[in-house]
Amino acid sequence: MAGYVHDDISPEDLAHQKALYGPFTQAVRELVDATIRTEVDEDEIRAVQAEVEVLTARLRKNQLDGAYGVRFGPTGRGRPWGNTVVGLRNPVAPPLVVEKQPTGECWSDFHLGAPYEGPPGLVHGGVSALILDQMLGEAAGAGGKPGMTGTLTLRYRRGTPLGDLRAEAWIDRSEGIKTWAKGQILDAEGVTVEAEGVFILPRWARPESQDGPAPRYFE
Amino acid sequence: MAGYVHDDISPEDLAHQKALYGPFTQAVRELVDATIRTEVDEDEIRAVQAEVEVLTARLRKNQLDGAYGVRFGPTGRGRPWGNTVVGLRNPVAPPLVVEKQPTGECWSDFHLGAPYEGPPGLVHGGVSALILDQMLGEAAGAGGKPGMTGTLTLRYRRGTPLGDLRAEAWIDRSEGIKTWAKGQILDAEGVTVEAEGVFILPRWARPESQDGPAPRYFE
Repeated sequence: MAGYVHDDISPEDLAHQKALYGPFTQAVRELVDATIRTEVDEDEIRAVQAEVEVLTARLRKNQLDGAYGVRFGPTGRGRPWGNTVVGLRNPVAPPLVVEKQPTGECWSDFHLGAPYEGPPGLVHGGVSALILDQMLGEAAGAGGKPGMTGTLTLRYRRGTPLGDLRAEAWIDRSEGIKTWAKGQILDAEGVTVEAEGVFILPRWARPESQDGPAPRYFE
Repeated sequence: MAGYVHDDISPEDLAHQKALYGPFTQAVRELVDATIRTEVDEDEIRAVQAEVEVLTARLRKNQLDGAYGVRFGPTGRGRPWGNTVVGLRNPVAPPLVVEKQPTGECWSDFHLGAPYEGPPGLVHGGVSALILDQMLGEAAGAGGKPGMTGTLTLRYRRGTPLGDLRAEAWIDRSEGIKTWAKGQILDAEGVTVEAEGVFILPRWARPESQDGPAPRYFE
């Protein structure tokens, strides 16, 4: 399957790459936040824009043809570093760091600032959906039942304030290639959004059509 | 309601601000894309990171205390420029430019690149949910029935490829403070994801508790 790259990176190289790309990507996240919130004058905006364009050109001198995909090391653990929610190398990702149990139970404590706003001061309802889709998929994968989203239903109990939040997810039940997962987002006062979804193992990843271990692209 | 600011900007100033912040934010979007895809060497990554940090500090010399919120001019049209999906000033937003009819029919043609990846080469399922939440809310607002998301259900018919896409949304029906909206994402081959949702006018925005025109924050 295109985009799933086995590069057999060593543990030392992996730690080295994390130490390099983690802080770099975080620096770009800070720039994204400042881009939304800045009130400096117009000349300064134009001057910063010109410098940003130079930096982009420097980074593009040598770059991947397309998106990041998922890389796998020798242990079979994936590195979805371009992922919109958990991607270490994606400045759009908050990023969530997801704790997982082999039972499928997952949780993550994270912070959402200005880039994730919908109604004033509140998390965009679709951002809650984005995070819960990832969390439910993580639960399915952690429980040994990875899949792509089939259906996803969100119930918004109240507005989710921007700030420190928690997400939780777990497997409700599983039948063959289908896994039902549930989850929620919480602020300090309790649950703000609930989700349930069905995750389906793609045909190309099923045992009968596999020439390697089943990918767990949400790892 | 906090975050809804009436600044009575003139049409000339509005055009001026769009011409300033639109290209600036787009430049940061390009940097975000390059951050994910770059393969330049480590010294160059560290050098670019240091310069990004300097630019962020320059932008932060004068900035909003919190998120952007929504600003209103004298016409009552809102500027949700911090919004995660449509925000002119938000580098996380693709951004979608949404065409609207007074009947509630909405559509948008847009491009999703590397920052929106889930499975390799495919749009993150949660990003489709994010976009459809916005589109259904736009439909409700365009039809004169603005609201916050109550429930949202997504059906994923097949993977959505990264690239050029279209989203469509419309009002299915409306009863009092509740509006049911539907929508879909399409690639060149047809529909990839379907959505339906209920949008509810918040209590503080209902006629009996209003001291001004009803906010239409998705405008």
